[in-house]
Amino acid sequence: MERKENRLGEFELIELLTGEIKNSDPSILRDFGDDTAFVRYGESIFLLTVDTLVEGVHFLRRYPPSAIGWKLVSVNVSDIASKGGKPLWGLITLSLPPRMEVEYLRQLYGGINSALKHYGFSLVGGNTTKGDKLCLDFSLIGVARRVIYRDTPKVGDKIYVSGTLGDSKAGLELLLENRESYTSWERRLIEKHLKPQARLDLAPVVEKLATASMDISDGFLADLKKMVKNYTAVVYTDKLPLSEELKVFCHQRGCNPVLYALEGGEDYQLLVCSDKDLTPYGFTLVGQITAEGKGEIYTPDGRELKAKGFDHLKS
Amino acid sequence: MERKENRLGEFELIELLTGEIKNSDPSILRDFGDDTAFVRYGESIFLLTVDTLVEGVHFLRRYPPSAIGWKLVSVNVSDIASKGGKPLWGLITLSLPPRMEVEYLRQLYGGINSALKHYGFSLVGGNTTKGDKLCLDFSLIGVARRVIYRDTPKVGDKIYVSGTLGDSKAGLELLLENRESYTSWERRLIEKHLKPQARLDLAPVVEKLATASMDISDGFLADLKKMVKNYTAVVYTDKLPLSEELKVFCHQRGCNPVLYALEGGEDYQLLVCSDKDLTPYGFTLVGQITAEGKGEIYTPDGRELKAKGFDHLKS
Repeated sequence: MERKENRLGEFELIELLTGEIKNSDPSILRDFGDDTAFVRYGESIFLLTVDTLVEGVHFLRRYPPSAIGWKLVSVNVSDIASKGGKPLWGLITLSLPPRMEVEYLRQLYGGINSALKHYGFSLVGGNTTKGDKLCLDFSLIGVARRVIYRDTPKVGDKIYVSGTLGDSKAGLELLLENRESYTSWERRLIEKHLKPQARLDLAPVVEKLATASMDISDGFLADLKKMVKNYTAVVYTDKLPLSEELKVFCHQRGCNPVLYALEGGEDYQLLVCSDKDLTPYGFTLVGQITAEGKGEIYTPDGRELKAKGFDHLKS
Repeated sequence: MERKENRLGEFELIELLTGEIKNSDPSILRDFGDDTAFVRYGESIFLLTVDTLVEGVHFLRRYPPSAIGWKLVSVNVSDIASKGGKPLWGLITLSLPPRMEVEYLRQLYGGINSALKHYGFSLVGGNTTKGDKLCLDFSLIGVARRVIYRDTPKVGDKIYVSGTLGDSKAGLELLLENRESYTSWERRLIEKHLKPQARLDLAPVVEKLATASMDISDGFLADLKKMVKNYTAVVYTDKLPLSEELKVFCHQRGCNPVLYALEGGEDYQLLVCSDKDLTPYGFTLVGQITAEGKGEIYTPDGRELKAKGFDHLKS
């Protein structure tokens, strides 16, 4: 045990220590390990989530500050949307390094405010502290009509995704090229990375029809692996929804857009299992839960797909 | 306007920008500017708060990590207690610098866990990210039976505080001496700083009898100033509750314990206004709201008391 822990990274250790917390409180329906915690109070089911953006890890200072503010709100709303919920109230903590520019902070708050308006909820409190790097922490409380976990599909369920996949990874790569100018289609990919749209528009579909649901933040395959951890699934790799922009990007660089769709992170699209047809709502059918298992994912011709996942700027 | 802003610090700017957020949502009873936000959902009133401990600002790495974990939880519980509420569910974000010691993290979590048990609620979710310095961010949701704000006393109300004041400041000064050994009474003062006890035991008294209430984190005078911002108050400086340990500490150093009580921060005692007698519950009567006004605070002999407040390690 000791030897094992000495080989653990800090993040694994935190997972270990968190796992040791035994929540006996009956109001807690689910704590760690899903997009949000689920708690019950009276007749209501509340969703609780927190996400953080750290300078140098999740973004660079040269990114537009309004986009950072927008993204901070959106990544949290995405977690609520993936549970079929509705965001209610947010709390923010800003750790500010010395000598921040006034205009930077103003634009950052502009981005936060426009996202709050767009998603239709309010910031109700927060905290500001000194730090070495700009660090933004956002907690969000939402409400749901029923519990929808990420890892509870049934055998036979279809697997769906919203929108298109892989655009954010291509956008990040373009952004890191730090060029003087970009074409309009390149800017659209960059926008997908900088200003993701949480799919709150699809939350009512999830709420009605999902058997399992999560948002795609670490990459389609890595996240699907979490969803099907007690199952075996097939993925129709030729059916993954790809944007025209991603196809052009990959064509120019001689790379495979399907790999971007499978492994790219931060798409913030929804990954949903259902026994109903979700295609009328704009979802794409991309696979099926075929049997109980241990998270094996196969192509239709029987090759196993191994998840690599996405590790932000340091990947 | 522009010129004024250019002279603003980042913290003032954030306050300015936050002030620009207009919350029209009727579920929000109070947002920024109190110990917690107050929101209503159905018949319930929820309290939302977030507090952060940053290495080098709020604590030093050499402090016992279990105390940091304890304090992180306690400072948030103190906000809920000051509103007469009950803590329900917490969320935590840890920003971890490279190469944290496993044993440090284990002790940190031990402190968090023992505080959760002590105050009787659960951690339900969280987030871990990379950072330059250890930074701990804790969000807490509580519930209250009625709204009790910090700035709503009535003229004639008595002013009460719980416990003793100034101990934490003396404890911090002892701690910063970084000596090989301390006497037992010195260790008790240090404990007051490192492991504050949130006065959740007094929340039912606040809930029943307070007309205004807050916890003392920035120092008695600085916090009272916020409480009486629309009033004039008198403070019986000779009645401020002082511990024997603080008296010895000040006697040895030739300093005035009353100044520690007035200006020391991080006591996490409760500051409560009421038209009832709170002394049977262990509160000390320390003053009275004498008239409407603009936050002037006087001694009984008519000298005005000016707040200096407490600015953590950098004060």
